[in-house]
Amino acid sequence: MARVRRLEVIGIEGLPEIREGDDLVTLFMDALNDMGTEIEDGDAIVFTSKIISKSEGRVVSLPELQVSGEAMRIARATGKDPRIVQLILDEARELVRVARNMIIVETRHGFVCANAGVDESNVGEDMAVLLPEDPQASAAQLRREIEERSGKKVAVLVSDSFGRAFRDGVTGICIGVSGLPALLDRRGELDRFGKVARITKEAVADEVCAAANLVMGEFSEGIPIVIVRGVHELVLERRSESEPESGIKEVLFSKEEDLFR
Amino acid sequence: MARVRRLEVIGIEGLPEIREGDDLVTLFMDALNDMGTEIEDGDAIVFTSKIISKSEGRVVSLPELQVSGEAMRIARATGKDPRIVQLILDEARELVRVARNMIIVETRHGFVCANAGVDESNVGEDMAVLLPEDPQASAAQLRREIEERSGKKVAVLVSDSFGRAFRDGVTGICIGVSGLPALLDRRGELDRFGKVARITKEAVADEVCAAANLVMGEFSEGIPIVIVRGVHELVLERRSESEPESGIKEVLFSKEEDLFR
Repeated sequence: MARVRRLEVIGIEGLPEIREGDDLVTLFMDALNDMGTEIEDGDAIVFTSKIISKSEGRVVSLPELQVSGEAMRIARATGKDPRIVQLILDEARELVRVARNMIIVETRHGFVCANAGVDESNVGEDMAVLLPEDPQASAAQLRREIEERSGKKVAVLVSDSFGRAFRDGVTGICIGVSGLPALLDRRGELDRFGKVARITKEAVADEVCAAANLVMGEFSEGIPIVIVRGVHELVLERRSESEPESGIKEVLFSKEEDLFR
Repeated sequence: MARVRRLEVIGIEGLPEIREGDDLVTLFMDALNDMGTEIEDGDAIVFTSKIISKSEGRVVSLPELQVSGEAMRIARATGKDPRIVQLILDEARELVRVARNMIIVETRHGFVCANAGVDESNVGEDMAVLLPEDPQASAAQLRREIEERSGKKVAVLVSDSFGRAFRDGVTGICIGVSGLPALLDRRGELDRFGKVARITKEAVADEVCAAANLVMGEFSEGIPIVIVRGVHELVLERRSESEPESGIKEVLFSKEEDLFR
C-alpha cells in the first residue's frame, strides 16, 4: 500500500452563516471556487456537525420547550438549565453519568458524549443546536452529491468535538463517515521485525477529524469545512463499490464490549 | 489571534533503526537535510515515544525477567504473557481495569492506558519496549536542543497511540509537550453571536499528535518523526519564557476529577 507521507489540512473560508434548507454542497463548491482551489481525487472533506444541524433545522428555541419533572430534577442536581436538560433527555438513549454541570449520555445514534451534543454556542440567544438527525446518512449523501458534481472520488466526514475519559479537553472526533474506513484494521500485517500485529486498529476517521479541528477551531473562527488532502490511499484503495459501508458504527463499542460503562 | 488556516503534516523519511545512546536531534536534522527541508519558526515536531524509549535503552529482554506471583495470577486471568504482565505491573501506579487480554492501568507518569504502554511491536523477538522514563522531560530537552541548533522557535511533542473509552481503535495522543500548550483554554472568548464560551478547552497537543499519527502509521511504516507546520500561532504567540510550562500534566485528570474511574 502506498503510504501517507504528507498531509495538507485546508480550511475553507468565506462560507456564510448556515440556515435551514441551505444547500451545503453548493455553498462549499462556491467557496472552494472563490479560493481558487479544486477538489482532488482522494480528498477527505470534513464538515462540522453544526452546519449540517443548522441546514436540517435542528435548532431549538428554548423558551418554547416543555420541561418534564425528570428534567427539573436533573437540572437541580447538575446546576444546568432545565430546558437544556430536557433536550439532552430527548436526544439520549441512556444516561451514562450525571455529575455537577455534566451529563454524559449515549445518544440515539450510539455516541457516548457530554450533553448529548446539545450546544448553545454559535447560535442566537435562547437557542440550542442538536446533533444532526442521522450524521452517517448525511456523510453518505454529501459524498454522493460532491462526487456527482465534481467527478472526483472523495470521502466525507462529519465531525464534532467531544470530551474524553481520563483526559481533560475536547478533540475533534467523527460522527459520520463515507468513502473512508472508520477503523484501519492492521491485524495480520507484519512489523519491521516480521512480527504479526495483534491488536492494532487505528481510528483513522477520528484522527482525520482531530486534524481538521485544529483548523476549524473550537469556537469563534467560523471554518466549518476543511479538506484533508493526502489520505488518498485510504479513500481510493480501500474503497469497495459492491459492499455496503459500515461507516461510523464500526468504531462504536456496544455496551457489553465497553469496559468503562 | 491569527488563526490556523492551513496545516502541513510532513513525515521525516530515511531515519535509521534507533539504538540506545543515539542522538535523535542529529539524526532528525540529518534526515531533514537529506530531504532538502528546513525547520521553520513555529513548527511542531512530533516524536513517536518508541524512538525515545529505544534511544534511552528502555528495551527489555523478556527471557531475563523474574515473574512475581501476582503477575502469574493476572496473566492467567487475562491470557497474557506473564512476563509482559510483570512489566505492566512494574510500570503501573494503579490497576484501573483488568479484562480478557486487556489490562488498563495508570502509569507512573499518570497516563491511563492499556498495558502501561508496554509494546512488543517493532522490536526484536522476545523483546518489549517501555514508555520513555519521563516523556515530558524528553520533550523539553529535545526542544532546547533543536532550538539551539536550528535557531528557530519550535514545539516538541512526544506521541503514543492509546485506545479510548467508548470507541474502538487507537489514535495518536500526546505524552509530553514543550513549546505548545497541551490545552487551549477558550473560556471567556466570545462566539460569533457574542455569547461567552463556558466550558471549551481544546486538547490541541492531542490533536497535533492525532494528525501526526496518520503519517506515522500504526505499524510497519517507519516514520517516527513528523513536522506539523501551520500551528505557529500556538507555538509562538502563546509562549512565555518566564513562567514554567505545565506541559502534559495539564491534560491529565486527577482520579477525583475523573468520572470514569
